[in-house]
Amino acid sequence: MASKQIRVIQFGLGPIGAGVARAVAARRNLQIVGAVDIDPAKVGKDVGQFIGLERALGVKISDDATDTLKRRADVVMHCTSSSLATVEPELAAILRARHNIVSTCEELSMPESTPGGAKIAKRLDALAKKYGVTVLGTGINPGFMMDTLPLVLTGVCQEVKNIRVHRVVDASKRRKPLQAKIGTGLTVEAFKQKAGKSIRHVGLTQSIALIARALGWRLDKIEETIEPVVASQPVKTEFYDVAPGLVTGVEQFGYGIRDGQRVIELHLRMCVDAGESVDETWIDGTPSIHSVVTGVHGDLSTAAVATNCVRRVVATAPGLVTMTDIPIVSAG
Amino acid sequence: MASKQIRVIQFGLGPIGAGVARAVAARRNLQIVGAVDIDPAKVGKDVGQFIGLERALGVKISDDATDTLKRRADVVMHCTSSSLATVEPELAAILRARHNIVSTCEELSMPESTPGGAKIAKRLDALAKKYGVTVLGTGINPGFMMDTLPLVLTGVCQEVKNIRVHRVVDASKRRKPLQAKIGTGLTVEAFKQKAGKSIRHVGLTQSIALIARALGWRLDKIEETIEPVVASQPVKTEFYDVAPGLVTGVEQFGYGIRDGQRVIELHLRMCVDAGESVDETWIDGTPSIHSVVTGVHGDLSTAAVATNCVRRVVATAPGLVTMTDIPIVSAG
Repeated sequence: MASKQIRVIQFGLGPIGAGVARAVAARRNLQIVGAVDIDPAKVGKDVGQFIGLERALGVKISDDATDTLKRRADVVMHCTSSSLATVEPELAAILRARHNIVSTCEELSMPESTPGGAKIAKRLDALAKKYGVTVLGTGINPGFMMDTLPLVLTGVCQEVKNIRVHRVVDASKRRKPLQAKIGTGLTVEAFKQKAGKSIRHVGLTQSIALIARALGWRLDKIEETIEPVVASQPVKTEFYDVAPGLVTGVEQFGYGIRDGQRVIELHLRMCVDAGESVDETWIDGTPSIHSVVTGVHGDLSTAAVATNCVRRVVATAPGLVTMTDIPIVSAG
Repeated sequence: MASKQIRVIQFGLGPIGAGVARAVAARRNLQIVGAVDIDPAKVGKDVGQFIGLERALGVKISDDATDTLKRRADVVMHCTSSSLATVEPELAAILRARHNIVSTCEELSMPESTPGGAKIAKRLDALAKKYGVTVLGTGINPGFMMDTLPLVLTGVCQEVKNIRVHRVVDASKRRKPLQAKIGTGLTVEAFKQKAGKSIRHVGLTQSIALIARALGWRLDKIEETIEPVVASQPVKTEFYDVAPGLVTGVEQFGYGIRDGQRVIELHLRMCVDAGESVDETWIDGTPSIHSVVTGVHGDLSTAAVATNCVRRVVATAPGLVTMTDIPIVSAG
């Protein structure tokens, strides 16, 4: 449905933001009209050249968000932080400038499940409605592989008793900050000190809450665990040499517990010695369903999901929405 | 989101309609308040007892559609025919009675792709808007496994060049009319006389058109082929004994052609010697994606999809919609 041209402001040009900007620039029906980043090394550069296009886009990266947000635009692609509390002022400023938002902020994908998030969600929803625009948090995970896709698969079930999702992410070819974020090269002791703080994939709680809400399940609680994956033999990436006994990544579990039972189980293994990436879902229900998806690429696919959401968010009624509130997101 | 009680009229109680009614009756938030069928053998029976529940529902099957449609209801589950032209008067009567519609009419899933369907779609859309209700055609296929799910999977792609879907349906345990509809037990010659007329799965064209529209692809044309699957050894079902050389089912291909290339290829093999049912999708794109889904059950899952659509259709703005116009359909 590539029809009307949609004007886009890119807010945040870290690795994810740059990837989103590349995906946006590749679409004929999307046009980048502004770009914001606070990094002095990026400010003043043409955004097209900065993200590695062969052509300039005629749009300079600015550190003046207020000024950039004054431009006429349909949507802001917001890619700055995982933390809802951190991004709230940024999102509020964008909403006041009357722009729709697609954000890769993990905690925004299901804000009510984040501690303190319900109040922030209420404020953002009110602000979005006041200014007649829509705000969505999305990405590949949370936002798609461990919540939206399993939910879509339940569409063929008359009844669902239990959902398990297993996601293996090969981090060996990914960007350095991601390899660092999962603890690559640390000792197990250093990992345990940082685990749950600087080392953690954010999103399992949000995915579980989104699944439970869509299925009408009231959960007693959501639990998360995090453990290191430890090298049994030497592992080498572009950025790290990991000796046996050191950490190659994270193994996280998330559990949605209802009436004392683990009714939702998410398992994420993200490490530099993971082997092939795979996304697997088991639905215990009527009928029971099993799915195996291969080929998903963390960085390319996060940018894809965010970009593919644009036309849905622009067309959706004002307010704070989740992936279960908008029509299915497809390429194009 | 099992919240407000939704009142349902079941329109049509053939095998699919009865399956849908069973799925509806099993949901706490759905209540059957009326049932219509023209078969004298069914009229006057309690719908609960007719569909095999242990309890009566206190709702008698009526052959008086006009009278039944006068009841207060939120949605009509419509399950009578694959043919859009055949069902138009029924749908029009339901819309005039101001009821939302979820229909398993295959050609309604993407009516514009059916010969003569564009005009019917326009009339139904106008009528739905006039009376402030919504009408959707859905099911497992068309409606889900060969269109909605592949489209959802493209959500993780920045670009899509080609989509192939392969669906194998084990018909050996299915109802007799379905085994008959796919030509089970016929000679190849008899099959070829009936192929494309009484013997044919309806839906590949609709699925291709739905995929193409969602991806913004203008197709030159859509082509379908149909061939018999022939037994190489004796095959026995509850209803048929198929000798070697006789037909066990259908093999259908559908092609969406763009700029001379087959950019969408759907392959459906439905026979009584198919082995395990499986749904497989290949997306050639950035990145390329492969998915394998097992466990989908034709009858249970068609009823599931239709029932799971109810709350979406009730909540959606008036008009004729498709599966790509409503929020993701999940159980619950």
